[in-house]
Amino acid sequence: MITFEEAHKIVLENSASFREERVPLNESLGRVLAEDIPADRDFPPYDRSTRDGIAIRFSAWEAGISSFTVQGTAAAGTPQMTLQNDSFCVEIMTGAMVPINADAVVMYEQLNIEDGQATVLQPVHLGQNIHKKGGDTEKGEIVLKKGTKIGPSTIGVLASVGKTKVQVKKLPKIAVVSTGNELVALHEMPEPHQIRTSNSYTLAAALEKEKIAATRLHFSDNREEIKAGIEKAFHNFDVVLLSGGVSKGKYDFLPEVFEELGVDQLFHRVKQRPGKPLWFGKHKASGTTIFGFPGNPGSTFANYHIYFLPWLSKCLGLKWTFPKIRLTEAFQNTTDFMRFIRVSAYVEGNELCANLVKSSGSGDLTSLVTTSGFLIIAPEKEHSPGDLLPFIPTEKILP
Amino acid sequence: MITFEEAHKIVLENSASFREERVPLNESLGRVLAEDIPADRDFPPYDRSTRDGIAIRFSAWEAGISSFTVQGTAAAGTPQMTLQNDSFCVEIMTGAMVPINADAVVMYEQLNIEDGQATVLQPVHLGQNIHKKGGDTEKGEIVLKKGTKIGPSTIGVLASVGKTKVQVKKLPKIAVVSTGNELVALHEMPEPHQIRTSNSYTLAAALEKEKIAATRLHFSDNREEIKAGIEKAFHNFDVVLLSGGVSKGKYDFLPEVFEELGVDQLFHRVKQRPGKPLWFGKHKASGTTIFGFPGNPGSTFANYHIYFLPWLSKCLGLKWTFPKIRLTEAFQNTTDFMRFIRVSAYVEGNELCANLVKSSGSGDLTSLVTTSGFLIIAPEKEHSPGDLLPFIPTEKILP
Repeated sequence: MITFEEAHKIVLENSASFREERVPLNESLGRVLAEDIPADRDFPPYDRSTRDGIAIRFSAWEAGISSFTVQGTAAAGTPQMTLQNDSFCVEIMTGAMVPINADAVVMYEQLNIEDGQATVLQPVHLGQNIHKKGGDTEKGEIVLKKGTKIGPSTIGVLASVGKTKVQVKKLPKIAVVSTGNELVALHEMPEPHQIRTSNSYTLAAALEKEKIAATRLHFSDNREEIKAGIEKAFHNFDVVLLSGGVSKGKYDFLPEVFEELGVDQLFHRVKQRPGKPLWFGKHKASGTTIFGFPGNPGSTFANYHIYFLPWLSKCLGLKWTFPKIRLTEAFQNTTDFMRFIRVSAYVEGNELCANLVKSSGSGDLTSLVTTSGFLIIAPEKEHSPGDLLPFIPTEKILP
Repeated sequence: MITFEEAHKIVLENSASFREERVPLNESLGRVLAEDIPADRDFPPYDRSTRDGIAIRFSAWEAGISSFTVQGTAAAGTPQMTLQNDSFCVEIMTGAMVPINADAVVMYEQLNIEDGQATVLQPVHLGQNIHKKGGDTEKGEIVLKKGTKIGPSTIGVLASVGKTKVQVKKLPKIAVVSTGNELVALHEMPEPHQIRTSNSYTLAAALEKEKIAATRLHFSDNREEIKAGIEKAFHNFDVVLLSGGVSKGKYDFLPEVFEELGVDQLFHRVKQRPGKPLWFGKHKASGTTIFGFPGNPGSTFANYHIYFLPWLSKCLGLKWTFPKIRLTEAFQNTTDFMRFIRVSAYVEGNELCANLVKSSGSGDLTSLVTTSGFLIIAPEKEHSPGDLLPFIPTEKILP
């Protein structure tokens, strides 16, 4: 049995790459950019007025002219005008092109306009209220780097430079496999010895947050059915997430089946709770990565976040760390196992804080609903209220 | 011109309700539950073994028996067996029903099994390794409350109680409207005086994060076109988000058009930067809520997060607060306006910290990409490094 640190290291050392694809801009949210994006023009593309008011020639004001004849109006979206005369001005709207020969904009609040004549009431500075062409970004400059995770503001930049399609990193094709004769479908009323399948729904929903549409598969506890199903999954998916079937029980064939199918077992069983039976390996022929989570809901949920998500981040070239959180209560880990403890997290002031969530064990699904993450507590450690501990969030804590 | 606090209060006082709907379980992630969910049976539904090992009768061990004849195997998913005799045991797998007459499970690690005879090597306690029927939740107990935001673990609970469809709060139908003749479509190469439309893409992507599929509309700067388009939008949408058209420029007809269409203006212009021209109102006849954001990308993006998201949370019955964040640099607000400052946020230890993002002004779209939120800085306040300030995140900061 290996330690948590060893297991985590092995998982991260075995990241994979899933190539790239081109997707329409409006399907790119949450994806990872696989190309550098240069500005296709200067931003702003012209000397742009940042106020509503009048555009004048600064040297005219400097020479003593303070009243200007309005020669016309420059609106955002109309071609550039030309200031015809030093004693003329152009009324100008926010976002409009500053006219040729003009080099200062005076806002309405500092003007008096009457009968087509604008009088400037306050001192003027050269270039005031003008956002210079290329002031933000020059044409050809990289505005978005390969590896950027695409958020709403990234979408805005991509739209600005005219990207209707974007090159992004492909996401892995994932099968979520449940096993066990005790599981029945959602719409069925379980017999006393049965329960409804739930882990595969939880995992599929968690993957949906990562923009991955997983395929749910179920195999009953029949060696040949499992073997055939898993083999097929290796050919069709980049990743297989299993829940159940990897502990020491008589009907937990999976590790044996994996061996027969030519899977490299990278580890099985970790000194941690929940999730001691955790299984991890790679199918040699297809390159498919296999995470075998234990069947208990709490165990699958914790280990998905603790192992799979950092692995996925690494595969996509994203950074990953466990933040710290302040434990508000005492907690003693009397075991020689690494423990993952359910907490309800919140922000107090600017600090992440965590209260313990009462749970009757890793089979307790309902307490997971009040859980917003897991603390990682080292073997044989005693913690006092106020201690900072590594934390893995499972729900959104900030708005 | 009203203050930020007044404006924010008016927005939150004018929340709306969008009724409820029934959606399939696998489309319910991120939605808000509109029904209490009772357990449809006890959880666990039977006395459940939490280990692989043997099930025995505790009183037999207490009476001195330590070697038991294996009478058979109880697997997860098979009906309940009966222990036939005090000197017998049943091999039992994790998740299986504890047999009738058995009341303790001894795990393999504490056993020696040879020739169908299991010898117990360590002391046994009554009820050990058994998760009692109803131990987590009793039948009829509410496991999920109305108003819960549905995350992956909620999905797992809903699956466990057999909910194939779920009653959730409806999301508003939203139109994102851009205005302005300077805007051209993404696939077009803009003339020097034009720019590509980007705000409506940014807003649609931000709404996608809230599970809302917004409709993007564009109107050019033509009074009649705008009026007809907006009127139609009032009939088809619960919310209209506009970007541009609400400042003081000659072509910013919107406030006038709104009045003609029977819209209650709740405020226009706020002592804040960016977003002074912010407009908010409600269409009397249809009940449609209108947010008029200024046209600059940074201004629209900030005010969407500062006003619209808290409003949406309120409408859906979710809690909302601005967390605090530690500013790492000095910042002085020399204006008498509330200011929203772009920052790049990160977690250090368990603390949210913020570095300032350099920006050339609210028209600077590219600096938004490195922005993960906005600080809210009160008028005429001078802040030192280390000060805690209210913060509105725009990107995910925790993993």
